[in-house]
Amino acid sequence: MFITELFKIQYPIVQAGMAWCSGWELASAVSNAGGLGLIGAGSMQPEVLQLHIDKTKANTDKPFGVNVPLLYSRIDETMKVIINSGIKIVFTSAGNPSTWTSILKNEGIIVVHVVSNLKFAQKAEAAGVDAIVAEGVEAGGHNGREETSTLTLLPLIIKNTHIPVIAAGGIGCGKSMLAVMSLGAAGVQIGSRFVASTECSAHQNFKNTVVQLPDGGTRLSMKKITPVRLIKNSFCNTIESMEEKGVSKEELLQYAGKGRTRLGMFEGNMEEGELEIGQVAANFDTIMPASDIIKEIMLSFHEASNKVKDTFCNKW
Amino acid sequence: MFITELFKIQYPIVQAGMAWCSGWELASAVSNAGGLGLIGAGSMQPEVLQLHIDKTKANTDKPFGVNVPLLYSRIDETMKVIINSGIKIVFTSAGNPSTWTSILKNEGIIVVHVVSNLKFAQKAEAAGVDAIVAEGVEAGGHNGREETSTLTLLPLIIKNTHIPVIAAGGIGCGKSMLAVMSLGAAGVQIGSRFVASTECSAHQNFKNTVVQLPDGGTRLSMKKITPVRLIKNSFCNTIESMEEKGVSKEELLQYAGKGRTRLGMFEGNMEEGELEIGQVAANFDTIMPASDIIKEIMLSFHEASNKVKDTFCNKW
Repeated sequence: MFITELFKIQYPIVQAGMAWCSGWELASAVSNAGGLGLIGAGSMQPEVLQLHIDKTKANTDKPFGVNVPLLYSRIDETMKVIINSGIKIVFTSAGNPSTWTSILKNEGIIVVHVVSNLKFAQKAEAAGVDAIVAEGVEAGGHNGREETSTLTLLPLIIKNTHIPVIAAGGIGCGKSMLAVMSLGAAGVQIGSRFVASTECSAHQNFKNTVVQLPDGGTRLSMKKITPVRLIKNSFCNTIESMEEKGVSKEELLQYAGKGRTRLGMFEGNMEEGELEIGQVAANFDTIMPASDIIKEIMLSFHEASNKVKDTFCNKW
Repeated sequence: MFITELFKIQYPIVQAGMAWCSGWELASAVSNAGGLGLIGAGSMQPEVLQLHIDKTKANTDKPFGVNVPLLYSRIDETMKVIINSGIKIVFTSAGNPSTWTSILKNEGIIVVHVVSNLKFAQKAEAAGVDAIVAEGVEAGGHNGREETSTLTLLPLIIKNTHIPVIAAGGIGCGKSMLAVMSLGAAGVQIGSRFVASTECSAHQNFKNTVVQLPDGGTRLSMKKITPVRLIKNSFCNTIESMEEKGVSKEELLQYAGKGRTRLGMFEGNMEEGELEIGQVAANFDTIMPASDIIKEIMLSFHEASNKVKDTFCNKW
């Protein structure tokens, strides 16, 4: 089953729920363009989330959802907002899905959980989720300790689970979408490419930095706390040299302090902020409306599919 | 152009030249089965390489080649053996291709260079190589400092160079081969899958460990020296805890000592040896003759191509 059926959407494209980047404007634009827009609740207080849900409803009549990091401190209030607002699709990440999955499913909500290894995929399936996002190490933001790439993680999870698997990490165009779908993905989750959209709520400085990023411009940082893929700026480089010296988790937490993602991605401080983006940012260089991004992805997906048909079927 | 034309082989599959794993037996088996077998000169003294070249010639009349790490201490003698033996295909890695490419090409040798980032790809192209191997961070053994995955690295290099690009890292079956070829690769280089072959010269203990590896079973280690992807065993875990404490490069080199790859991969010490393998080892579990591996890869490649034709052309 493709996720077009599961979510009742036109294209098998989910826009990742991302802190400071995906509010109502991006989510509704993606849903209106035929993808699945997700509000990223990770950077929202419950009251702010309520506002974004209301605005998304006012701006699209298509399906949309909310992404919730399960380790969030006000998780009970956040889930109450989601359930009371009649949200029909929830993506959970960064935590154990066993507590919330049954509660959400009892409310008739479709639940998808994001994982970075096979063990968590099997746990999520056992918890009763409707689909899994298999996210490779090339993805931006929080990341798995196994550091397994999408190309290796995706087939492993597909082979060893029995529910739809959505591929994430390293996908920013229709060719890479075809690549993972030919591996058996039921759809794709795309984050970084939608950061470089007109409707993304991040600071313009951040979007400009993202589209100029070279390969090797990110680093999997803070492994002693929770691995997170960041743009190499002053903050990230300081963390790197602290890590090379072997400083403790506490020293790292103290230096990082609070509010670094807001400072960077929302307020536009490109040196002292924590800037989360995937490796795939090296592969695109334009900021466009979300609907144009989806059109471009689907166009190159079809070109790539036809090329496979014409070139590889019956060859060799 | 596909590498079937460049190398005059039946299938666009290169068997990676790997220390302690790919001697004459594996290289000739792969070439006889229609791929391109490579002798891995990295673990061979020039005299030993000569022996393996002679035996490969005696065992196949198909094209084969030699992989040479350019930082090898006896590089001049190694290259002399290669040139004097009439070798027609050389893959170079781990070093600067500008010195040797023109010398080899003047001898009529096809030269391919392995890279892990765009800058080195462009340098290799400028040096005059015939093709590039774009190797992602999921690959086993020596690895790039950028830690870019195959899914992100490959399209970037294809877009910004003008010669055939061979994909490497994370490819162990026909589906993943189709995935990278649909991204525009001219062929694939496969290492780990051929370690688990009957003809691989590694110790049986190592092959058995490889086919039982779970996801997350490897680690990108020794970043202060040269990043290398290793199986997490006693040696690798000790390096990890030393790195977490911030020990110096010198202390790491002293602990590692000499001969660890031989001890592990060739002599079969699974705890104290240095065991190089790619993440994709988690995705297969059988040891087979190289010819069966190639047959299985091509079968699933064709199945996957037909599935793309039937499923994705004209859908959505």
